[in-house]
Amino acid sequence: MSQRSCLSVILAAGEGTRMKSALPKVLHKIAGLPMVAHVVKAAEAAGAGDQALVIGHGAEEMRKAAQKFAPKAECFVQEKRLGTAHAVLAARDAISRGYDDILVMFGDTPLIDPAVLIAARLKLAKGAAVVVIGFRPPSPAGYGRLIEKAGKLMAIREEKDCTDEEKKITFCNAGMMAIAGKQALKLLEAVGHHNAKGEYYLTDIVEIAAAQDLEVVASQASFENALGINNRAELAQAEGIWQTRRRREAMLSGVTLIAPETVFFSHDTEIGADTVVEPNVWFGPGVTIATGAKIHAFSHIEGATIASNCDVGPFARLRPGADLRQKAKVGNFCEVKQAVIEEGAKVNHLTYIGDARIGAGANIGAGTITCNYDGYSKFFTDIGEGAFIGSNSSLVAPVTIGKGGYIASGSVITEDVAEDALAFGRARQRSLAGKGKELRERFASAAAARKKG
Amino acid sequence: MSQRSCLSVILAAGEGTRMKSALPKVLHKIAGLPMVAHVVKAAEAAGAGDQALVIGHGAEEMRKAAQKFAPKAECFVQEKRLGTAHAVLAARDAISRGYDDILVMFGDTPLIDPAVLIAARLKLAKGAAVVVIGFRPPSPAGYGRLIEKAGKLMAIREEKDCTDEEKKITFCNAGMMAIAGKQALKLLEAVGHHNAKGEYYLTDIVEIAAAQDLEVVASQASFENALGINNRAELAQAEGIWQTRRRREAMLSGVTLIAPETVFFSHDTEIGADTVVEPNVWFGPGVTIATGAKIHAFSHIEGATIASNCDVGPFARLRPGADLRQKAKVGNFCEVKQAVIEEGAKVNHLTYIGDARIGAGANIGAGTITCNYDGYSKFFTDIGEGAFIGSNSSLVAPVTIGKGGYIASGSVITEDVAEDALAFGRARQRSLAGKGKELRERFASAAAARKKG
Amino acid sequence: MSQRSCLSVILAAGEGTRMKSALPKVLHKIAGLPMVAHVVKAAEAAGAGDQALVIGHGAEEMRKAAQKFAPKAECFVQEKRLGTAHAVLAARDAISRGYDDILVMFGDTPLIDPAVLIAARLKLAKGAAVVVIGFRPPSPAGYGRLIEKAGKLMAIREEKDCTDEEKKITFCNAGMMAIAGKQALKLLEAVGHHNAKGEYYLTDIVEIAAAQDLEVVASQASFENALGINNRAELAQAEGIWQTRRRREAMLSGVTLIAPETVFFSHDTEIGADTVVEPNVWFGPGVTIATGAKIHAFSHIEGATIASNCDVGPFARLRPGADLRQKAKVGNFCEVKQAVIEEGAKVNHLTYIGDARIGAGANIGAGTITCNYDGYSKFFTDIGEGAFIGSNSSLVAPVTIGKGGYIASGSVITEDVAEDALAFGRARQRSLAGKGKELRERFASAAAARKKG
Repeated sequence: MSQRSCLSVILAAGEGTRMKSALPKVLHKIAGLPMVAHVVKAAEAAGAGDQALVIGHGAEEMRKAAQKFAPKAECFVQEKRLGTAHAVLAARDAISRGYDDILVMFGDTPLIDPAVLIAARLKLAKGAAVVVIGFRPPSPAGYGRLIEKAGKLMAIREEKDCTDEEKKITFCNAGMMAIAGKQALKLLEAVGHHNAKGEYYLTDIVEIAAAQDLEVVASQASFENALGINNRAELAQAEGIWQTRRRREAMLSGVTLIAPETVFFSHDTEIGADTVVEPNVWFGPGVTIATGAKIHAFSHIEGATIASNCDVGPFARLRPGADLRQKAKVGNFCEVKQAVIEEGAKVNHLTYIGDARIGAGANIGAGTITCNYDGYSKFFTDIGEGAFIGSNSSLVAPVTIGKGGYIASGSVITEDVAEDALAFGRARQRSLAGKGKELRERFASAAAARKKG
Repeated sequence: MSQRSCLSVILAAGEGTRMKSALPKVLHKIAGLPMVAHVVKAAEAAGAGDQALVIGHGAEEMRKAAQKFAPKAECFVQEKRLGTAHAVLAARDAISRGYDDILVMFGDTPLIDPAVLIAARLKLAKGAAVVVIGFRPPSPAGYGRLIEKAGKLMAIREEKDCTDEEKKITFCNAGMMAIAGKQALKLLEAVGHHNAKGEYYLTDIVEIAAAQDLEVVASQASFENALGINNRAELAQAEGIWQTRRRREAMLSGVTLIAPETVFFSHDTEIGADTVVEPNVWFGPGVTIATGAKIHAFSHIEGATIASNCDVGPFARLRPGADLRQKAKVGNFCEVKQAVIEEGAKVNHLTYIGDARIGAGANIGAGTITCNYDGYSKFFTDIGEGAFIGSNSSLVAPVTIGKGGYIASGSVITEDVAEDALAFGRARQRSLAGKGKELRERFASAAAARKKG
Repeated sequence: MSQRSCLSVILAAGEGTRMKSALPKVLHKIAGLPMVAHVVKAAEAAGAGDQALVIGHGAEEMRKAAQKFAPKAECFVQEKRLGTAHAVLAARDAISRGYDDILVMFGDTPLIDPAVLIAARLKLAKGAAVVVIGFRPPSPAGYGRLIEKAGKLMAIREEKDCTDEEKKITFCNAGMMAIAGKQALKLLEAVGHHNAKGEYYLTDIVEIAAAQDLEVVASQASFENALGINNRAELAQAEGIWQTRRRREAMLSGVTLIAPETVFFSHDTEIGADTVVEPNVWFGPGVTIATGAKIHAFSHIEGATIASNCDVGPFARLRPGADLRQKAKVGNFCEVKQAVIEEGAKVNHLTYIGDARIGAGANIGAGTITCNYDGYSKFFTDIGEGAFIGSNSSLVAPVTIGKGGYIASGSVITEDVAEDALAFGRARQRSLAGKGKELRERFASAAAARKKG
């Protein structure tokens, strides 16, 4: 396999009107990644060293997005939408470079398994000129049927053109193909447009190749692998299939998901064995979790690194740059962003930590806020090892609390606090006997007056 | 259709003992609306200009609730519970007003589709005297069977009275009927009570009408449309069916639901295209969302208006009267109630905004609280355009922060702040060298002493 | 039944390598309880007065855990893993005590229904020597088949030893057995190890007993009852089955679960009629809820007692020791731990209450924190009846706020406040005209300079 060069041509020019979206269809996401990026990843995993993206609708937006998810892919613009064979030929310059194998894939078929593509490429390696990916949908109505004879594929027949006998065939066209590089251009150029819509159909190359006595065969994929996305209900269905696969994989690798159907992974989530994830957890992109962590219910985590035996949530929000070291704890109603929480430090309740370092073993009281923003710039808060930040404190950055510093509850800290120092920034309490009652009576009668008036 | 006058008679007198509830059965909610209100809405959508509610158990509570969900409906009290025909006759005064069509519906069959009722009314318009709604349940055991002959309905037979042949019939009685207004009273009055329970059964009018050579036909509904609710497991099932329908509708109209099964709509939720809803979002009644908004996971939203391109959550709670203008942002652990958040204003973290206006582009720091309540009355906080409220501030209402005002972190603001002014309301910081360590040692030995003691 | 003495022998020695866990397999939890504890509970419910736990892998951890979930059980260590009959004989000392009935159960089959065990014991009471629990899996491939003849069980045949005819049998071995105490030891000792693996198989006693003309019969369990757990995907499946059962039970008893599939119970959750639970609620162990409470979405509750008509959430976290009396309210982003919230008291927003009493009718403002921890010890906060705690206050424990006390917003309270007194602990506000604008300009140019630099 590895000796054979391979190009994937990924068709991603369609508008996708049924998505009802300003965003090009194939940029809608599954597991936090545009669906076309899933297709690119599958092509790469199947050994396609180069990728040609055929774009059209929203070409500029597509090109920009592709720079992120597939920086090495070449983009080819299909100026007019004249059918799938025409679309593939938009990448003529790439195809004509003499690859052994050409994979034709679709940007809106994101769940394709690389194994299916590899199987198709193997058939090319054994001499086939064209390999068509087929599948067996729950109901074949509406799909093109694969017409086989003695193990060879003779044609792909649109349902409306099928005989009653052919309609009984349950093996359907999934769209994707593997084509021998040597024959590809010639076959594609032989496709005509003498049909009702006047379009060039890729499916025609089956009959063209068969007529030339080239070997054409089908290769089967599962229904899920072949799922094409045309509206957001199908998008959600694909997301569901992806998540189900990923959850099962996590569980079999030693992660406890108490209610797997309520845990959402991103395409790149990494999570170690003996980590327990309670129900209702969202992992956005960029999350890495080591072993033995506990992620409690209702946690929203993205761009975060969580070391072993950390304790997160419930109701924790970790944003990009949150970096929890061993046995750190981030508890309920806490938000951590761009901050290192060192070993064993505790951020237990109702706290905002942004642009900060919390030293090992420090304890951050409930209601603590790092005031990191002046309306224009962000500033850093450095809290030393073993420091104790009293509840409801405001730490106005830039500010440093030395190792072992102790901040009294309710303080506003605007200046650095030395190691082992105690800092106050709060007013002294005054009590006025009987005044509470007086106030209550005044407020009550004002409320009553207001109601009358 | 529109020329024919129509009355719906909705039976809602039952106790519903299997609900095990102090609340009358039909007031239990689906999508935030009492199930009987769903029935009223379906009747209205099917063209019933008037509604007669037959109530009995919990009549006063029902009457009061009906004033809200169906203020124009007439309530008729069925004093004794003597069967369904008797119940319908409780609305005799309405029925005798000479409607063309009478729809008999059930308050505990909330998922009925108006299209089913319209189809039944069309059969009346074509000459039928009685149209019975039938359905095909997964298992017909226990249901009354519809006995048809040459396309005409001859009888509705209780299962216990069925012959073995009749038991094989899978077409069952859903309860609902459409009756020609001209015949209705006469047919209902002909129903007797010579049966085991001594009750007047509505189903008897089928045989009565057939015996008079009136045309009686069945009209089919889906199983879901006919689902009757008798306990809270069935209530949850109906809720699930309703939600599944609504989610699909939202997705097909251009809303992205990443995990549709975790998003809960209310009966009146409105949501625009290209809005993305992450998993685990709850929409209570009264929510309107424009296009292109982003609703992050774990958001709880009710009675709120969200303009285009707003960003809400995760962990946001919007309560009634929250009014977010374009590009406003309400982030994690924030609660907004009865407040306008103007264009581009940000309420990002751990904040309570109640009874307030936040001017365009203003930035509300983490931990800000509008202190709107004195124990008796609520007061208003007005924050001007472009103001900056430092973190952990308390704004004691009534109070006005002028345009461009700047509040230092940790301030308690009790007096108005002028445009462009800077306001402080916090103590100056004092630090005591070494005292933190001293304190820690003292606390540690006290803790040790306490353990021993 | 009750006259017959019964011992359960629960096999819990396996390593469970497919769990990929440092924790012994049977200590993985379902509904917050180790799966082996579910087995013990089922045995007890089926009348087994004594329990013998056969442990091996992780014996010390098992013994320690057993002291919690089954303090009266005897532990027997199986030193070598030589097959199931060998494992049962590890409990020889217990078995030889002369029980009427011996139940052999498996620590990794946690969903067994006591009714199944009782049915098996009844067969012993009627004269059977061995009763094997069988079940009919969706696909029998891989399971041992129960070979019956004229209502008697002749053998349990491993699939690989089955004839083609026997392979068609769908009645399979679930593992569990009931054995007459009188015969048990003799039968177990007769088991040999002349097989491929050289192990002593419990299943052999069927043929041994049959050969002695003892009565051997099968007793059927449902597939769910027989579900054995070997990896974390199966663990999640069992959890799901357990939850589905429990949710249905709750609904039928009068609890409204709007979306039952999103509510998670623990093994000991108690919840009264007419309580409404919104979607996405987690009940950890130790929760009791009375009637008519409302638990809003996104609540995380463990070790808490909630009296009738309380209102909890959304986004509430109740931790162990939270004790809400009638009509108490704990609202969004509030955490309550080891605290009594007396009748009608309100803790509505963004608050941490730990180690405290909140008197009846008291109102705790948004952002209030009980500062209960000095880094070493926890201290108590006592808030009197009808007190009003202004928003964003810090109550530094130990501290007492008298009945009717009134705390001004943003105060730090370090000393007791007398009944009806008013207390302040905040700085007076100062405003500097025009300084806000000046500051903003300075910050803006600094930010610009930083960008350039």
